[in-house]
Amino acid sequence: MLVFKRELEIAFGDCDPAGIVYYPNYFRFFDTSTAGLFNKALGMKQIEWARHYEVLGIPMVDTGSRFKKPSRFGDVVTIETQVTACRKSSFDVTHKLFNGGDLSVEANETRVWVAADPEGGIRAVPLPAEVVVALGHKPRD
Amino acid sequence: MLVFKRELEIAFGDCDPAGIVYYPNYFRFFDTSTAGLFNKALGMKQIEWARHYEVLGIPMVDTGSRFKKPSRFGDVVTIETQVTACRKSSFDVTHKLFNGGDLSVEANETRVWVAADPEGGIRAVPLPAEVVVALGHKPRD
Amino acid sequence: MLVFKRELEIAFGDCDPAGIVYYPNYFRFFDTSTAGLFNKALGMKQIEWARHYEVLGIPMVDTGSRFKKPSRFGDVVTIETQVTACRKSSFDVTHKLFNGGDLSVEANETRVWVAADPEGGIRAVPLPAEVVVALGHKPRD
Amino acid sequence: MLVFKRELEIAFGDCDPAGIVYYPNYFRFFDTSTAGLFNKALGMKQIEWARHYEVLGIPMVDTGSRFKKPSRFGDVVTIETQVTACRKSSFDVTHKLFNGGDLSVEANETRVWVAADPEGGIRAVPLPAEVVVALGHKPRD
Repeated sequence: MLVFKRELEIAFGDCDPAGIVYYPNYFRFFDTSTAGLFNKALGMKQIEWARHYEVLGIPMVDTGSRFKKPSRFGDVVTIETQVTACRKSSFDVTHKLFNGGDLSVEANETRVWVAADPEGGIRAVPLPAEVVVALGHKPRD
Repeated sequence: MLVFKRELEIAFGDCDPAGIVYYPNYFRFFDTSTAGLFNKALGMKQIEWARHYEVLGIPMVDTGSRFKKPSRFGDVVTIETQVTACRKSSFDVTHKLFNGGDLSVEANETRVWVAADPEGGIRAVPLPAEVVVALGHKPRD
Repeated sequence: MLVFKRELEIAFGDCDPAGIVYYPNYFRFFDTSTAGLFNKALGMKQIEWARHYEVLGIPMVDTGSRFKKPSRFGDVVTIETQVTACRKSSFDVTHKLFNGGDLSVEANETRVWVAADPEGGIRAVPLPAEVVVALGHKPRD
Repeated sequence: MLVFKRELEIAFGDCDPAGIVYYPNYFRFFDTSTAGLFNKALGMKQIEWARHYEVLGIPMVDTGSRFKKPSRFGDVVTIETQVTACRKSSFDVTHKLFNGGDLSVEANETRVWVAADPEGGIRAVPLPAEVVVALGHKPRD
């Protein structure tokens, strides 16, 4: 499976009065990491691959996160992101955030590959085999 | 169980280029609702009940959310929040966000009642029976 | 001049490790207040008045803020907002944020009334006289 | 004058329903750049130089920003930051954000060098000559 890894320096404004990252901000970090994983896998920015595959994006259906160790202003953390399962049009992503070598936050996401619905709104469409392969998974038969 | 219900008008800045609430912001909304539930249950603001019970707060251990229907700028949504389980020092919270009568987002949280650790940092301490009762649960024997 | 006044309770997540509102969040508060002023003046939500007047919105050109006194988690503050000057297509807004009766933050904005440009992008268009009047100003001759 | 320059990739969550950076987020970006400038000048992270100089930080007194050209998700922008004036305990910072070579946003800040007041709260204290020099300015006589 393809892994996207990035470093991030915690900003003052990411932290709360307890002096630690305000947990909703981790979801912002992870969303950016999922975008980075897709950009790496597909070799294009999201605006480009959305146009290339004629889709609107990969909206979130379900996400969760476990907070094991806090991070603080100035900490440099590493986030590792991968797609752990591909189904017909939905897929799962996991994130591991490390701080000083310690696994500090874990998160999971379920997202869907969606296109514009000709009748308005959005609808799930099948993940192209080449996207599945680029993410490091076997395409469906 | 005590339920805390509040209305919220979705702001322009809560929304993303897809025109819908950027999902990390729901966690901000829910965190504020949990604070509101405790304020209602205990009849004090957090800064006051933290002092009263000699605790630091109720940090998040684990949270997750399911996104069923998007909300947009100007929508007035209702969030219903309750503590669904109390254990020795940890407890579970659920949030239901309704938009136009539809259950649009559901979330769950596990938080811990923590005090300052005399040796530094924080440590879980038992939920006082009166807090458990105020949240609408039976105290532990 | 029409004044839009609203109360706001400072959330935990609005505050930084110094325990006070992280100043970029004041700009979020003020943006929401400007939206509220227009909704009050025009008797419609932004999505409705944008459609009614065939405009895209009122993007920010220039804003500034002076921070006189900090606000903290749980403080209930009042924001008073008004349009202080209308020009052909741009206008000025001021915000005063009061905490416990003290003027704590002041801000000014210059925004523009814009429509979609048939050639792409946006372009400034004249403020309709009825909008100018609704904001409590004299229309231009 | 010392200039701190950094690149930043605009995230999806930085943008609003107009598809452009939501302007309050620029203030977040600039606050992080000011922190980066001081870290570069002083060769220490903020938590370290705050301890070293026995101060609490550099709170914002007054800030403003002019928005000339929007930036979008995926744009890589450059921010150049410098202290343009040092007074006894307050100082001015300017930021220039470039996108594709165009000056897109300009901002100014006035901040104060503050220490804990023995009687509670904070108070302005004189900028140390070595800090002034490290920022590329002449110390006061």
